[in-house]
Amino acid sequence: MPNISGPAAKKIIKGALLREKVAERAAECVAQGLTTTSLRGVDSHGIRLIHHYLAGVKSGRINPCPAYKITKKLPTTAVLDADNTFGHAAGMEAVKLAMEMAEEYGSGQVAIKNSTHFGAAAYFALEIAGHDMIGMSFTHSDSLIIPTHGKRSFLGNNPVCFAAPVAGEGPFCLDMATSIITFNAVRRLRELGEKAPENVGTDANGIPTTNPNEMTMLLPVGSYKGYGLSLMVEILCSMLTGMNYGSHISKMFENIEQKRHLGHFITATNISGFQEVGVFKERLAALLCELRSEPALNEEQPIMVAGDPEKKKYLSRDQDGIPLSDDEFKQFRNLNKTYQLNVELD
Amino acid sequence: MPNISGPAAKKIIKGALLREKVAERAAECVAQGLTTTSLRGVDSHGIRLIHHYLAGVKSGRINPCPAYKITKKLPTTAVLDADNTFGHAAGMEAVKLAMEMAEEYGSGQVAIKNSTHFGAAAYFALEIAGHDMIGMSFTHSDSLIIPTHGKRSFLGNNPVCFAAPVAGEGPFCLDMATSIITFNAVRRLRELGEKAPENVGTDANGIPTTNPNEMTMLLPVGSYKGYGLSLMVEILCSMLTGMNYGSHISKMFENIEQKRHLGHFITATNISGFQEVGVFKERLAALLCELRSEPALNEEQPIMVAGDPEKKKYLSRDQDGIPLSDDEFKQFRNLNKTYQLNVELD
Repeated sequence: MPNISGPAAKKIIKGALLREKVAERAAECVAQGLTTTSLRGVDSHGIRLIHHYLAGVKSGRINPCPAYKITKKLPTTAVLDADNTFGHAAGMEAVKLAMEMAEEYGSGQVAIKNSTHFGAAAYFALEIAGHDMIGMSFTHSDSLIIPTHGKRSFLGNNPVCFAAPVAGEGPFCLDMATSIITFNAVRRLRELGEKAPENVGTDANGIPTTNPNEMTMLLPVGSYKGYGLSLMVEILCSMLTGMNYGSHISKMFENIEQKRHLGHFITATNISGFQEVGVFKERLAALLCELRSEPALNEEQPIMVAGDPEKKKYLSRDQDGIPLSDDEFKQFRNLNKTYQLNVELD
Repeated sequence: MPNISGPAAKKIIKGALLREKVAERAAECVAQGLTTTSLRGVDSHGIRLIHHYLAGVKSGRINPCPAYKITKKLPTTAVLDADNTFGHAAGMEAVKLAMEMAEEYGSGQVAIKNSTHFGAAAYFALEIAGHDMIGMSFTHSDSLIIPTHGKRSFLGNNPVCFAAPVAGEGPFCLDMATSIITFNAVRRLRELGEKAPENVGTDANGIPTTNPNEMTMLLPVGSYKGYGLSLMVEILCSMLTGMNYGSHISKMFENIEQKRHLGHFITATNISGFQEVGVFKERLAALLCELRSEPALNEEQPIMVAGDPEKKKYLSRDQDGIPLSDDEFKQFRNLNKTYQLNVELD
């Protein structure tokens, strides 16, 4: 399997976007977001998406040079109109704004409207936690999961993300979709010709199946609990912004010329409004350390905390690069060539 | 099965607390919180707890007349020192404070320290949603769930609660524990002599069992996702407050004379900082209506949204009263008699 280094992937992504006349700041956010996401091992939301995004810019779905409009009715609330640009870029504007509000007032909450796919929710919450605040990020997405007792999908696989700073290591980060498995995992099972676990997804009639080729919809994690969390995220992203919800949201991979009008929600909480930041971080480090030292059922599988697999993956991929299939590597080489970027790849 | 009406239960609870010299406002919050929780069908966190609470007052665990201390370092953050009083009462002070901050600044976040059991998280989030704001409430609790790959419990069954106002009906309310089933459900299975479902809990060695008599620990909902959510709640309730965490938290039903030093976290978000409240509520009503009208897999089990079972239960119990076992009814009659409350019961 060929590898691409993080810096090379970022250069190609940013270079291609700039050649497509994407604003510098937006191109930087997309390139940084996709690359760190791949380095953290979350391939479904990483550098592979650049091809889809470039198609979106060319088709008119994504606005390469947005004019953001910010409506700030109260000191710690704002609505950011993303002007149909990249969710990564609008999200980072919201992060900045939420942190400014939290710096002065203790908390900041920004709802984003008229946006597009924002990638991994962790990109935003981790940025906030990197500034020693507590960050949360949410996005709705197009219909995929079946409400409890239902037989067709309505809400999306709406993620909940929470990050907090820890002394001596990267932030704690929980970034969880509200289905049991992702649709990306279903696609991987199809490729491998393997069965899916029981009761994670259904066929087109809403009947649970273990055949990944028949699986078109997913079941929420923990039944009504995951369904409820997905609905909570929908409320934050649609009701606060006026955007469409659930099955009214246009599909990510269909009608590529269509604007998506997505909503996201981002919050920053100033830890020093409650507790000395140093004490918070030291105590959280101690808590995580205690959890990791708890006795395991099976010695080969030690206890981890949310974000540990991604931290581990980051260490190895930062060293060895991001693994790609031959086809995917060829696509990156093509971008390098087409846009005359001259990034060293091999 | 004998029933007790909501108003009668509330009068007995409040009366008994007042006779034990609990401050009027605290007694009102506990009585109101326990009664509405039972009316909503959440028996594990309802009126049955009064006996445990009275024991806590008598033993010195719960301070009947607290002097709250509020430390407000920034306009939208506060730490409320509950002075070891009832969690219900301290929580309601925090609700008031968070809403005042949200009214003026858009959001309000209050961390509570030195508290005791606060009952159902929904009591607080629903109060906020009843004032047309978005409410969230969290509490940590003593060790009960096993971290993924682990074999002994560390974190508590820390709940996540989110409530938002809806046009034409009571608020949407998701109040979820982070285990698959509650320990109360395990106790009920013991009484009924029934088996537990597979993979919801373990014996004292961390081995999954379906025998409720052997079940001493619970598994997190959705494996590492529920575990991650539980840890998120622990961070909000312990790290922001300086309280103990996980297995260091004293047990609810042991050493009744011991102070518990619990932490909670409550947030209020002013909807009008983002969107006209009327529009928010109407659109949320439409979303919930659409979900409830989605086709069901089995006609006898229609689609619901979080909080629907509790709304339905409230309607019937508000009419017919709260069902109690003969023993439980007798205990309420005894309170009525012991404290000479003269509440009409039969």
